[in-house]
Amino acid sequence: MQFKIPFSGRAHAYTPDELATIIEAASNAVTLTQGRYRDIFETAFKAYAGAEHAFAICNAASALELSAQLCCFKPGDEVIIPSHTFTASAYPFIKKGATPVWADIDPVKRVVTAESIRACLTERSRAIVVVHLYGYGADMHEIMQLAREKNLIVIEDAAQSLGVFIDGKMAGTFGDFGAFSFHSHKNITTLGEGGMLVVKDPQAAAIVPMIRHNAHCAFTGQREDYWQPAMGNVDLPMLNGNILMPNNYCLGEVECALGTKLLERIDQINTEKRMRALQFIDSLADCPQLQFHREETDRHNYHLLVAKVAKNLRNEFIRRMSRDHGIQCVVQYYPLNRYPFYQKLGYGEAHCPNADEFFDNMVSFPFQHSLSNEEMALMETAAHQVLRELGC
Amino acid sequence: MQFKIPFSGRAHAYTPDELATIIEAASNAVTLTQGRYRDIFETAFKAYAGAEHAFAICNAASALELSAQLCCFKPGDEVIIPSHTFTASAYPFIKKGATPVWADIDPVKRVVTAESIRACLTERSRAIVVVHLYGYGADMHEIMQLAREKNLIVIEDAAQSLGVFIDGKMAGTFGDFGAFSFHSHKNITTLGEGGMLVVKDPQAAAIVPMIRHNAHCAFTGQREDYWQPAMGNVDLPMLNGNILMPNNYCLGEVECALGTKLLERIDQINTEKRMRALQFIDSLADCPQLQFHREETDRHNYHLLVAKVAKNLRNEFIRRMSRDHGIQCVVQYYPLNRYPFYQKLGYGEAHCPNADEFFDNMVSFPFQHSLSNEEMALMETAAHQVLRELGC
Repeated sequence: MQFKIPFSGRAHAYTPDELATIIEAASNAVTLTQGRYRDIFETAFKAYAGAEHAFAICNAASALELSAQLCCFKPGDEVIIPSHTFTASAYPFIKKGATPVWADIDPVKRVVTAESIRACLTERSRAIVVVHLYGYGADMHEIMQLAREKNLIVIEDAAQSLGVFIDGKMAGTFGDFGAFSFHSHKNITTLGEGGMLVVKDPQAAAIVPMIRHNAHCAFTGQREDYWQPAMGNVDLPMLNGNILMPNNYCLGEVECALGTKLLERIDQINTEKRMRALQFIDSLADCPQLQFHREETDRHNYHLLVAKVAKNLRNEFIRRMSRDHGIQCVVQYYPLNRYPFYQKLGYGEAHCPNADEFFDNMVSFPFQHSLSNEEMALMETAAHQVLRELGC
Repeated sequence: MQFKIPFSGRAHAYTPDELATIIEAASNAVTLTQGRYRDIFETAFKAYAGAEHAFAICNAASALELSAQLCCFKPGDEVIIPSHTFTASAYPFIKKGATPVWADIDPVKRVVTAESIRACLTERSRAIVVVHLYGYGADMHEIMQLAREKNLIVIEDAAQSLGVFIDGKMAGTFGDFGAFSFHSHKNITTLGEGGMLVVKDPQAAAIVPMIRHNAHCAFTGQREDYWQPAMGNVDLPMLNGNILMPNNYCLGEVECALGTKLLERIDQINTEKRMRALQFIDSLADCPQLQFHREETDRHNYHLLVAKVAKNLRNEFIRRMSRDHGIQCVVQYYPLNRYPFYQKLGYGEAHCPNADEFFDNMVSFPFQHSLSNEEMALMETAAHQVLRELGC
């Protein structure tokens, strides 16, 4: 069916300036990949995020897989991952040899906590994947303290949380690795695909360029002729005695130029999304059947606008929003242990009652940045009306 | 140093129409990844290549890795790969569990032959990677006959050979898999990164979309509500009883729109490159010290323009071209067995005398499509002069 307000696969339009940036790079880049626009993007990103090492990557799933490689898992190693997240938070770690252990979420904040992680600890725990889901920064202070105590690697899946700050420090820069996304849905997007990997350890950071780019590296030492013994070298990426196989995870120059440009307005987009979310939430404050997570600070960028619907009214709520108002609400994120993918691999068991309860009763509203104020008002009115019909 | 004619990292400029295509897609794509532009690109590519199944992929190395996954290698399986090729022709197969066996090249055509492959056969041979290097189509008739005889999987690395025809059939569409590249250097480029995977077996083709996109798939059967049990499914990609782990290998919509547009002029670009190459080769016909591979038909797209330099004059030739004329000649492709990457993995041994001999004496001229006729003439004059100085 055609929706009046679809749940869009695209977060925002490009401004004329951003389109000009695309054309400038497409026209003038001396090479269209692995050139100076990449360096500029990484430099700008590091400055914005307050990170020491950042690497432009073709997408966030690949950034997470690269972080999983850098973890150098041994057989039996367990990684604690929220069950309530996107599948790319989890499968890269399984690919690289770890066993997932599903952590529950906080029922109000809908992200993992130090407590929910602690409940998953075993002697084989090796790492934690913290997902700042929906754009809310999880409690990294307590989680990092737990990680230090238990000697755990921390990977922050910050795909949805660019520009989210926890007491002034950006989500994705607390742990050993932070993966950011510039996918089509995200608050800023580099032509639909794109990511950034933040790495803390300088030794790990040093081999990322090789792993990203087919194991290419420079020959060391002075060379009399630039082509001897060959133009460039290809060496085996090693970390602490472990072999790490390469990939092509390069992000093109046009995406990098555009990403740099978009960083100029990520704060503005995040602020606008948060202001809008708060207005929507507050306008529905007389409907306690919709339970939002209300956060007034830059700890939430409201990448997505989700609520729990009380009293088993969720399905009827979505049905009527769709049928009577042409508004496409959706549900997110199916607890991973329920997907056949994880069940067939033997990871179908989880004790995550909060995640299950939330997913089974949640609704995610269309909330792309490109919605007009009129569309937001329409959605507000529709939600009110449907809730009234449902006796709320 | 600054070269007058650098060996460019970029093959061609975009026409105003192509830039307009980029802007149109960046402005109007409803989703910026995995949408209708991808479908249009794949359809156009299949029509152009004469292939039944084709999948847009983020880059050719990933397309090759995906083909390596679909081979479902067992421990001990050997893959015959030319030593004289780019590293991405080889490492994806090692990643996916195969052992490389290095095949030699024909000294004139500089690609593998049925004979050089036959010399590598053992009881453990499972697959062949045929690289249409420099843009010349290897002899696929004889190679396919050998493959059928020995029951070998054939992967064509057609990264450099888009629009190359062997008796009317496009290189990359003979074997079980064909990997194409739209990298910055290639005859057409989708903003610097991009690839296409052609797959012959319908069963293998059926699971490519899942493997490409985080194992996403649709729920089967009729659903009363579009969100029940979730918006989409995530299942385990399986082929002949083998588990194949997913990736994010998606190519963005803008790249797909641009790729579709560029297919309109790939034949023209290839023809122009071939005409130019032939003119350059013929103008130097009085210098037998430069040994080109001359091919007048569409079996060669002259992606690159390379020659063997006789009498150990290669290094001095490149030195003088650079120092006296500001022309940056390079050398390509270091036999893979000489790289530390392969040596450390135990694959440092090869019996490829033709590849070694060619690499040690070869020169690759700047040959990006964007060179002007004046630059080509300058390069011709310079080559003549240097060769005269060297006593040729």
